[in-house]
Amino acid sequence: MVPHLITALTGPINELEQRILESLPAIERWFRLEWMEHTPPFYTAVDVRNAGFKLAPVDTNLFPTGFNNLTVEMLPLSVQAAMAAIEKICPEAKNLLLIPQRRTRNTFYLSSLQRLMQIFHQAGLNVRLGTLDEDIEKPTDVALPDGSALTLEPLLRTKTRLGLKDFDPCTILLNDDLAAGVPPVLDNLHEQYLLPPLHAGWAVRRKSNHFRAYEEVAKKFAKLLGMDPWLINPMVVRCGEVDFGADGGRDALMAQTEALLGKIRRKYKEYGIQEKPFVIVKADAASSPLGLKTVRDVKDLADLSRCTRNLPDGQLTTDVILQEGVPTFERVNDAVAEPVVTMIDRYVVGGYYRVNAGRGIDENLDAPGASYVPLAFAESNQLPRHGAKPGASAPNRFYMYGVIARLAMVAASYELEATDPNAEVYE
Amino acid sequence: MVPHLITALTGPINELEQRILESLPAIERWFRLEWMEHTPPFYTAVDVRNAGFKLAPVDTNLFPTGFNNLTVEMLPLSVQAAMAAIEKICPEAKNLLLIPQRRTRNTFYLSSLQRLMQIFHQAGLNVRLGTLDEDIEKPTDVALPDGSALTLEPLLRTKTRLGLKDFDPCTILLNDDLAAGVPPVLDNLHEQYLLPPLHAGWAVRRKSNHFRAYEEVAKKFAKLLGMDPWLINPMVVRCGEVDFGADGGRDALMAQTEALLGKIRRKYKEYGIQEKPFVIVKADAASSPLGLKTVRDVKDLADLSRCTRNLPDGQLTTDVILQEGVPTFERVNDAVAEPVVTMIDRYVVGGYYRVNAGRGIDENLDAPGASYVPLAFAESNQLPRHGAKPGASAPNRFYMYGVIARLAMVAASYELEATDPNAEVYE
Repeated sequence: MVPHLITALTGPINELEQRILESLPAIERWFRLEWMEHTPPFYTAVDVRNAGFKLAPVDTNLFPTGFNNLTVEMLPLSVQAAMAAIEKICPEAKNLLLIPQRRTRNTFYLSSLQRLMQIFHQAGLNVRLGTLDEDIEKPTDVALPDGSALTLEPLLRTKTRLGLKDFDPCTILLNDDLAAGVPPVLDNLHEQYLLPPLHAGWAVRRKSNHFRAYEEVAKKFAKLLGMDPWLINPMVVRCGEVDFGADGGRDALMAQTEALLGKIRRKYKEYGIQEKPFVIVKADAASSPLGLKTVRDVKDLADLSRCTRNLPDGQLTTDVILQEGVPTFERVNDAVAEPVVTMIDRYVVGGYYRVNAGRGIDENLDAPGASYVPLAFAESNQLPRHGAKPGASAPNRFYMYGVIARLAMVAASYELEATDPNAEVYE
Repeated sequence: MVPHLITALTGPINELEQRILESLPAIERWFRLEWMEHTPPFYTAVDVRNAGFKLAPVDTNLFPTGFNNLTVEMLPLSVQAAMAAIEKICPEAKNLLLIPQRRTRNTFYLSSLQRLMQIFHQAGLNVRLGTLDEDIEKPTDVALPDGSALTLEPLLRTKTRLGLKDFDPCTILLNDDLAAGVPPVLDNLHEQYLLPPLHAGWAVRRKSNHFRAYEEVAKKFAKLLGMDPWLINPMVVRCGEVDFGADGGRDALMAQTEALLGKIRRKYKEYGIQEKPFVIVKADAASSPLGLKTVRDVKDLADLSRCTRNLPDGQLTTDVILQEGVPTFERVNDAVAEPVVTMIDRYVVGGYYRVNAGRGIDENLDAPGASYVPLAFAESNQLPRHGAKPGASAPNRFYMYGVIARLAMVAASYELEATDPNAEVYE
């Protein structure tokens, strides 16, 4: 089942779908050549928004969750992709240490973790869970909704290696996004593979770097297909540090927002789009407690208390980006939905919908407390159907989503290369 | 659906299944290490026979067909494996030239070919068909059961390259087993990848080489699992050239057969197996027209006319092997069945059953004219189910079949290395 797309069957996205299907061999070859030069992130989940007139990634998660939302039928794809990933990184590997999110008892998350363990077990590794939670001093079971349990074990750190009691892994897979900072136990591990690398965590990562890389990727790809990169690229402005407590800071933010709204307006005019433009104000680092704010008019910025109410007392400055708002016109029943595409190594292994009945088409759906109905892609993204009417076929739509998500993955790979603190510089 | 296994739920194979499941990470790691040293064949299909007391490959096809028998739901696995294969061989590739079996109008075969084209198209290549049939002098459509058509095009050979009109491929994929010999149009192609290599074809290949390599692989694997290699290895005796017209030739064959029957009898006694041993007399090269003969008693060899009636007039000698007969105790409804496991690159991408109501449990099921009911593996081999009772779970059975088939694939890789005419010799 594909969610109903309000703007279905006409407009630029259907032309894009048509072009993407016709160019399939060229697109796949383009990705092959990119992966000759760049290393894909170990795993990635990309939130994609389809506005009918535009299709763009809005968030690229390098510590993906939601593996429990993938259809069981498509799990062999994940296993096969995991086999390819392991083989590349450490074929001799016996043991994989998986480090989950700290202090979570969310059963959706635990189910995702269980699925991830299953994937890597079936790909041929002994998988155990080591927790960053220092309160856990001995192996501790946490219950799952299906009646089984996961065992969290305390980490054992030596001078050079990280492991568990009687468990020395070759590879350590992080599933915590390090928004709370890099725990010392993960520092200076040079003998083992730590994936994703520490600088992929939100202690270091910046959205502005990602979207700058994505813009470069979108331009290259748009050139290949002979199209306007704006159709797949959300415009992003990096504001740097904004002082929400000072009039000067707010005024500068308002001016930048007005400029971006103007750019969007011009694009909408060029394409005859009747929607009202909007901008999302975001913290540059996901670790900042700044709330996301949808701005349809700069006057909305006069009151920033909704944005800043989570900031610690006294802190009124944080790094900010402005992102062109991409409405989602997909709905599951009546609830607003957006696809999430999941990848392991360079392969799309599945996807699902994030659905939020309490939110509008121009709002963040990944909101705490909101109701959440995962809906797996029922058909594979790998089997586009030639000759189907554009916009009408789920496999074709999913193939297109997989292409856009992989562009964001290529961007993440550029981003991680550019921000690698250990990179050798050739100049 | 899994075919009913007559000997289900007890016996050595269920112990083997148990051990294979318990050893999953060690087994997958073992394969990873093998593939570090050896190159898998491009694609492979292995006929596996489950006797309840023994599970063994009986034929390893390096020019597989039957892709139409794989479930459509599992096709993404084939596409992903094909992507991995292409990326390794020739990431810059745009065009793939697929050379089908010569002069076939069999609609099962054509459907398999169509599926193969679909897989490689979706993996990102322009795929066209070049025919070895010299009667085809211009692009010619052949009709498919679904109403569509495939276009066969005449090959265009230059001094150094093979292609079609306006189509210069980087890689040439052979789907003809070359039993009729290597056509000159395929000779001396050093600028393009020709896969599988010519020496994988039956003009050169010998079953005795394959099973010698398989015995080595089976011994290594059995050592890993601490088991008797005979449980997965069919004993094979290479007789060399046998003169069926001479009493001496026949007597030698009878003596070798009697010796092999004796060895099987001793193994059956060791395991308390009540079956009657049998031996299959086969030509060493599949290109020989010698018929397969099931021999339960050496006296059966007194009349060899059934074996030799297809040999050309006057020819009474051919290279022969004797293979320990492995009965198949799987049945679909009442018809005897054997699984066929299909692989692309190092990955199991699916399987199906060959079913033949007209044949016995100790006979060749891949017989011309016999009725033939393909039955796809309904569940993936990549998701074994922990804790299921041995012998009772389809995913567990299929995982085990996938392991045995991959052992035969490793053997084919050893075999192709040992028989490579261009190999450098390090001594």
